[in-house]
Amino acid sequence: MKNKLKPKAGKSTSHATLQAADLTDVRDTIRKDAYTGHTAGLAGGYLQANLAIMQSEYALDFFRFCQRNPTPCPLVGVTDAGSRFMTTLGLDLAIDTDAPAYCVYRDGVLIETPTNISNLWQSDMVAFALGCSFTFENALMNAGISMRHIEQNVTVPMYRTTIELVPAGPFSGGMVVSMRPIRETDLDQITKITAQFPHAHGAPVHIGDPATIGITDVSIPDWGNGVDIREGEVPVFWACGVTPQNAAIAAKLPLFISHRPGAMLITDVDERANPPILK
Amino acid sequence: MKNKLKPKAGKSTSHATLQAADLTDVRDTIRKDAYTGHTAGLAGGYLQANLAIMQSEYALDFFRFCQRNPTPCPLVGVTDAGSRFMTTLGLDLAIDTDAPAYCVYRDGVLIETPTNISNLWQSDMVAFALGCSFTFENALMNAGISMRHIEQNVTVPMYRTTIELVPAGPFSGGMVVSMRPIRETDLDQITKITAQFPHAHGAPVHIGDPATIGITDVSIPDWGNGVDIREGEVPVFWACGVTPQNAAIAAKLPLFISHRPGAMLITDVDERANPPILK
Repeated sequence: MKNKLKPKAGKSTSHATLQAADLTDVRDTIRKDAYTGHTAGLAGGYLQANLAIMQSEYALDFFRFCQRNPTPCPLVGVTDAGSRFMTTLGLDLAIDTDAPAYCVYRDGVLIETPTNISNLWQSDMVAFALGCSFTFENALMNAGISMRHIEQNVTVPMYRTTIELVPAGPFSGGMVVSMRPIRETDLDQITKITAQFPHAHGAPVHIGDPATIGITDVSIPDWGNGVDIREGEVPVFWACGVTPQNAAIAAKLPLFISHRPGAMLITDVDERANPPILK
Repeated sequence: MKNKLKPKAGKSTSHATLQAADLTDVRDTIRKDAYTGHTAGLAGGYLQANLAIMQSEYALDFFRFCQRNPTPCPLVGVTDAGSRFMTTLGLDLAIDTDAPAYCVYRDGVLIETPTNISNLWQSDMVAFALGCSFTFENALMNAGISMRHIEQNVTVPMYRTTIELVPAGPFSGGMVVSMRPIRETDLDQITKITAQFPHAHGAPVHIGDPATIGITDVSIPDWGNGVDIREGEVPVFWACGVTPQNAAIAAKLPLFISHRPGAMLITDVDERANPPILK
């Protein structure tokens, strides 16, 4: 049995401590703002999700945008308008408190990065949860494929591309991708493994020459950090959950809230569940 | 090369004639109201879809309903509000003319079954396309598994069940399933094959005893026709595209339009495409 944590508001808990905790304790600690960091490696086996929160009037177009671009925007849950609870992903999963930190944008400009958004909640808000790459990274690492950005303890490199998205209302633009260097001999295996996770971006969208998808210098990402690509390795690109966030920011919604990158919403659903709906 | 058809409005074309035609000719014939029958076996290899058309104010809840119940409601496309064109599924796929026939419901009551709905179109309408069982039936028949209802030339039997759906706004109720008798020795194979088509209801939701899912007499379906279950066969139940239609009728929307059962929208997209988005 895992340690029983007794988090207190204002008391900070470390990532290392939380790694030894079970889902209930991780949730409780985050909810009390006692942990505000990244969620990689926490509550192993449970689906983690990107968050996109907006006013109801934009929700139908955002929904369409996700349906039309499912590889970068793999929708795994949506709330009823005004509800703080994502009931299909957790028994009491509260959108306004259960991610470690949030980014609040007004008219496309980042205003603040609070640890909860309870005081910003409005009766017309709709929250979308979208699958994230942690799921397939866990599967790759379990298969013995190392992740360079994790080895180097940096954020995965992410890039704007010229891969056009199918627009919907105010949402459009190019796909954002993440990159992981992979040994040439592992390419078949990593493609097969990640294809099994359509709710976590699925198989790579591009393997090899970055210029083909509009990336001029792979050592200089648009988000995250550059990582070494060693001899015998090729850059492999997956659709990235920053895509919908980026599109929503560019759409300059009056109010748009996301999780803070890396600080995901941890759900009650098994990361292998398909469909990702709580039974 | 297939025969070039020259359909004329008012002139009726037979199913047998259309079976020899290519997608363009099938589309054209249906669009001109020269074919109003079922679409099984037409334009082989192209994705066929159920249609659910409603006013924009109900669309966000219907979208949620599909996201929360993806097995019976596998969403494959959605239009912009007021647009007659489902651009992600066809270059000029017109929702109001390109299904052979439609069912028009007002306040939950079937009013008419026209061959096009051009005169009913409103600027606030949203059309949803949902995958259908024709896709997996084709795959099963290609693997040598016969479909009893096709052998007997009747409509597949469909049943209300006690499998509860996750509600969204006015949409709720029980799952509707279709049934096909399958030899016990084929059960593993049919499960594996149909699981490959998540956009066409995927693997069976139940195998065996109908009473477990609330079906009292399998010989008396709620829709379609009863079929023989022979020695060595078991009834196998798949989620059915009548589910969302049934939920929308029960919700008594002021105006709800579906395709006429069996007379599907034939798209430009390969039925094996995943995601089902036109490149």
